[in-house]
Amino acid sequence: MDHLDFSSAYADLALDARDLASRASGNQSIPGVDASEQDENGIKITVIDITSDEGAKAMGKLPGHYVTVEVPALRQKDSDLQDRVATKLAQEFELFLQKLGISKTAKVLIIGLGNWNVTPDALGPIVVENVMVTRHYFELMPDQVSAGYRAVSAIAPGVLGTTGIESSEIVQGIVEKSRPDLVIAIDALASRSLERVNTTIQIADTGIHPGSGIGNKRKGLTKETLGVPVIAIGVPTVVYASTIVNSVIDMMHKHFKQQTANTGQILGMLDQLQDSERLELVKEVLNPVGHDLLVTPKEIDQFIEDIGNIIASGLNAALHEAIDVDNVAAYTH
Amino acid sequence: MDHLDFSSAYADLALDARDLASRASGNQSIPGVDASEQDENGIKITVIDITSDEGAKAMGKLPGHYVTVEVPALRQKDSDLQDRVATKLAQEFELFLQKLGISKTAKVLIIGLGNWNVTPDALGPIVVENVMVTRHYFELMPDQVSAGYRAVSAIAPGVLGTTGIESSEIVQGIVEKSRPDLVIAIDALASRSLERVNTTIQIADTGIHPGSGIGNKRKGLTKETLGVPVIAIGVPTVVYASTIVNSVIDMMHKHFKQQTANTGQILGMLDQLQDSERLELVKEVLNPVGHDLLVTPKEIDQFIEDIGNIIASGLNAALHEAIDVDNVAAYTH
Amino acid sequence: MDHLDFSSAYADLALDARDLASRASGNQSIPGVDASEQDENGIKITVIDITSDEGAKAMGKLPGHYVTVEVPALRQKDSDLQDRVATKLAQEFELFLQKLGISKTAKVLIIGLGNWNVTPDALGPIVVENVMVTRHYFELMPDQVSAGYRAVSAIAPGVLGTTGIESSEIVQGIVEKSRPDLVIAIDALASRSLERVNTTIQIADTGIHPGSGIGNKRKGLTKETLGVPVIAIGVPTVVYASTIVNSVIDMMHKHFKQQTANTGQILGMLDQLQDSERLELVKEVLNPVGHDLLVTPKEIDQFIEDIGNIIASGLNAALHEAIDVDNVAAYTH
Amino acid sequence: MDHLDFSSAYADLALDARDLASRASGNQSIPGVDASEQDENGIKITVIDITSDEGAKAMGKLPGHYVTVEVPALRQKDSDLQDRVATKLAQEFELFLQKLGISKTAKVLIIGLGNWNVTPDALGPIVVENVMVTRHYFELMPDQVSAGYRAVSAIAPGVLGTTGIESSEIVQGIVEKSRPDLVIAIDALASRSLERVNTTIQIADTGIHPGSGIGNKRKGLTKETLGVPVIAIGVPTVVYASTIVNSVIDMMHKHFKQQTANTGQILGMLDQLQDSERLELVKEVLNPVGHDLLVTPKEIDQFIEDIGNIIASGLNAALHEAIDVDNVAAYTH
Repeated sequence: MDHLDFSSAYADLALDARDLASRASGNQSIPGVDASEQDENGIKITVIDITSDEGAKAMGKLPGHYVTVEVPALRQKDSDLQDRVATKLAQEFELFLQKLGISKTAKVLIIGLGNWNVTPDALGPIVVENVMVTRHYFELMPDQVSAGYRAVSAIAPGVLGTTGIESSEIVQGIVEKSRPDLVIAIDALASRSLERVNTTIQIADTGIHPGSGIGNKRKGLTKETLGVPVIAIGVPTVVYASTIVNSVIDMMHKHFKQQTANTGQILGMLDQLQDSERLELVKEVLNPVGHDLLVTPKEIDQFIEDIGNIIASGLNAALHEAIDVDNVAAYTH
Repeated sequence: MDHLDFSSAYADLALDARDLASRASGNQSIPGVDASEQDENGIKITVIDITSDEGAKAMGKLPGHYVTVEVPALRQKDSDLQDRVATKLAQEFELFLQKLGISKTAKVLIIGLGNWNVTPDALGPIVVENVMVTRHYFELMPDQVSAGYRAVSAIAPGVLGTTGIESSEIVQGIVEKSRPDLVIAIDALASRSLERVNTTIQIADTGIHPGSGIGNKRKGLTKETLGVPVIAIGVPTVVYASTIVNSVIDMMHKHFKQQTANTGQILGMLDQLQDSERLELVKEVLNPVGHDLLVTPKEIDQFIEDIGNIIASGLNAALHEAIDVDNVAAYTH
Repeated sequence: MDHLDFSSAYADLALDARDLASRASGNQSIPGVDASEQDENGIKITVIDITSDEGAKAMGKLPGHYVTVEVPALRQKDSDLQDRVATKLAQEFELFLQKLGISKTAKVLIIGLGNWNVTPDALGPIVVENVMVTRHYFELMPDQVSAGYRAVSAIAPGVLGTTGIESSEIVQGIVEKSRPDLVIAIDALASRSLERVNTTIQIADTGIHPGSGIGNKRKGLTKETLGVPVIAIGVPTVVYASTIVNSVIDMMHKHFKQQTANTGQILGMLDQLQDSERLELVKEVLNPVGHDLLVTPKEIDQFIEDIGNIIASGLNAALHEAIDVDNVAAYTH
Repeated sequence: MDHLDFSSAYADLALDARDLASRASGNQSIPGVDASEQDENGIKITVIDITSDEGAKAMGKLPGHYVTVEVPALRQKDSDLQDRVATKLAQEFELFLQKLGISKTAKVLIIGLGNWNVTPDALGPIVVENVMVTRHYFELMPDQVSAGYRAVSAIAPGVLGTTGIESSEIVQGIVEKSRPDLVIAIDALASRSLERVNTTIQIADTGIHPGSGIGNKRKGLTKETLGVPVIAIGVPTVVYASTIVNSVIDMMHKHFKQQTANTGQILGMLDQLQDSERLELVKEVLNPVGHDLLVTPKEIDQFIEDIGNIIASGLNAALHEAIDVDNVAAYTH
């Protein structure tokens, strides 16, 4: 989430993109986009497949397989819920690997993107610290490794501002030397909507793409650059002040609509603008005075630790058959 | 800033209160309130004295002496500016002590309120870690203490949620045993306006007051409860989502006013509401869905460390004559 | 374990004292000292009661009840063993409370002595961070507290060097304000023998006593100073270089005795010296060159975290009937 | 210093090796080894050049250039001394680069070996956190970089136990992608003598070599493996219990020699053994009971932070002409 590193980090969740695209299409289904939802005890799973260029264009997202786990109650410290989310995540991640045709012995390298000195950006490094690493046993004493495990390695490469080297270059070097069959990259994201901050985990098979801008010399973490499939796991942990304002005006619109036909009287021109136009307007006001800050909830320290543990537990259970989803939490820190 | 601890922590800065009161009075001077400003190289000092009950009522603040140091550029990491702010703070704090008639040998106890596990609430504990502590030398080897120092002690008492004891009870107990002549309490605050988050330091001689609500059994940190004067140093580090929205609508109003006479057309009814009414409206929309979060800028880790060092350096130079404001930074961590 | 704070921290474990006294008495039982041992799956419990002044003199310890939990394998990272130790500790601590006649509703204040910036001295603060705190629920909403809990509060008062105030003064002030029925003080200790570092937990009902030396103005944490019973929980985490050398010479003596009658030939005069004389000799050599360092095992970070969790889990289960010793670990961090 | 990672980390300092070799040769000069010493205000610089295979064999070290900075007072917290050591280190490091023929624009990659979760092993990661990183400016905006700087990058690759990948493989991958002209590797070492723990910094041009044992599949960080020169900076931060005992017996020997001709009477056979034989004897006693622990001084947290800052400051000043050795400390954290 380093500003110079991955401007794509600020890209929409597929879920945000779908919401936008639905609204634009008047809530009709979008050609080339398959979506299904399931809600289980406060954990909502949305699977979105973008299967054609048409769908990709409508969504503003790359073709691919996107799974989102939404848990509105995740912001509250509830360890039972957290265990359930870890278990659900493990199941979804196993299905995800199956769908991609990743074998049970495929060697995995987990990359924790982000900066451990910046709490809302420390998700990747925290997952790396808590994930079970096994590759060295396979290398040094292969005949002593129990059945039901695979070779997993993990590294947090830091950010451009602290290493002086693009994360993608570091990862490429490590992939070439350590030869995994699959890369899983964890990153904190910026959210398009207030309610998804710290409540949502997205899994996607599209890798991680740098933005354009400065980054024309820069490379992402994708099958093209690394030579192996790249699964990205992202959690929105920050939101722009402008996004908050825009979200809230939208919430006001919905709120007043239940009370009056004439919401325009209350919200003026703000009521008629398209979502993206209104956002531009808010940015136009905030940017010149330097106040379009990226913000994060006050409880971010606790949240990042909790969600980091959930993802690490989920990965441990999904990656190793010997680890049961029932006692998944025991294998993390 | 613990929710159960000091609801007053969410009180206005005197500066915010003055802005509100000025607006309400049509920018006329407020009887019983003296205010003066001075701006020096990007550091703005505002001194507000509330001298009568009338003034207190108009401001919604206790009578007292309030000094605010505002540094809009403080959010940028600029170590030269930080040194200048520490120096300025030391000078203002010395003047503050003089005005209160605190002698140069008065014994001082510094209380760092807040929770060190919650980054935006860790200001108090960080100041305590970086301040120069000398009381034990005066107690154990009084004849060996150099001239130009006074007895300073410091403690971070934790928050109700982690100790099970009111901070005010802990501080009372320590004051009774260690007998300081003055208490200085450091706390992180919630801001009434986006632009003051992480840019403003307030010094006040009114102590720290708990809110009403739950807290009817609860006591503050004041001359009445502790028996010695209490100076409060506060920095706004968090802001409610509703406050951001309200601030921005106000900024939009000012922005469009430069372009059109009819800002009501653009902002609808939002344009005509009083500031406090509009804030209530926003809260009414956000609260039911649990989204009126307290948020903090993404860079809070760095900021809390920087501002904690500035305050510790400023206090070291102001409290000990032997420490020169010129090399104030050398005495902190 | 702060040098100015509690020189008694360097006092012997009752176990070390018993070993010395036994050796001095030619392994005969010591009048006024009752001792019993039990070993269960690698966890050795020794209960020592010093019941008379004669026993106290022979042991060089105050009369009192001492329970020691020794787990040689505790230095290895083994989470099953750690759970078993927490469970055993909870059982022993419950028996300890019964023996002292502490009721199941007695209010408890847990004091975490030591310095959180010095890893081997951070045991007390870590226990405080991980213990379940409930007193504020009893104070603020007494009718909503479930059965099976008691009021527990906890604070880490810091050390003299960082607060400028004696820990004992801070604790006295807090006890007077918060009125617990029992104080439990946790502290890291220096060990008299290499093998007990990071493997041993001692519970004693004698409180914590400052040394003589500088501390003539200083007070301990005892029933006399606080007005309520004080249970001390201590873990040796550091050892003097001189102690290591002395231990090893003793181990050499035992080692060579199995091979030859004439160990004096190998170890010279070192072989004939009393334990304490030999220690003095080693100190005499090391002190002038400043090398009688206090050292701690390289893995201290992990150990302090593990043992802190064990003690917090054990206390949670022992103090609250509603918390079952079987799932004791779930209530800590 | 990870056990599986670099058993060579436990290799002697050149200084230790020289002491041993001198003693063996009866203090005569060693052929193929040039050594010179200089002492300046408590900072002792020893330059050792091993110029022939004969010298290498006598020393048990690779041919190469070794510079050691010894500062016995470094264990005391003295910030003036620390500044002087940083300045001296910068000067010595500049000379070192000159002697190796490294140009002033050579691109440098700094590798911080070790584990940031193990305090005595965290030296490398701490240096990396505090060093000035500039490579990305040269890559992204080369025409805007001021004169007097060179391209520096830095990374802490973790240890085998936490990443599952050999540090050497990770570094090789990064070197191939980022193409530095020089690698500087920082590591914590085990000491052969108690008095050098936390007082000594060694610079060597020999790179870092893995041990034999398990490591037969393993590679070091050397010119051979990386294709560019490798300078190793090492600081002994831990010492074996057996080493402490052996050191102290040697100190006893010297101590008693001043008092009596017959030290054998006091120390028995210990007095006649060769240093290495005596060490074996001590290990023989300690190992079977698992007590030959690696230990570190109790104050290791503070020390690691101080020495990490000294090395980072020294490197900043030595690597960038624009950074003056006089104000070297300003550029670190």
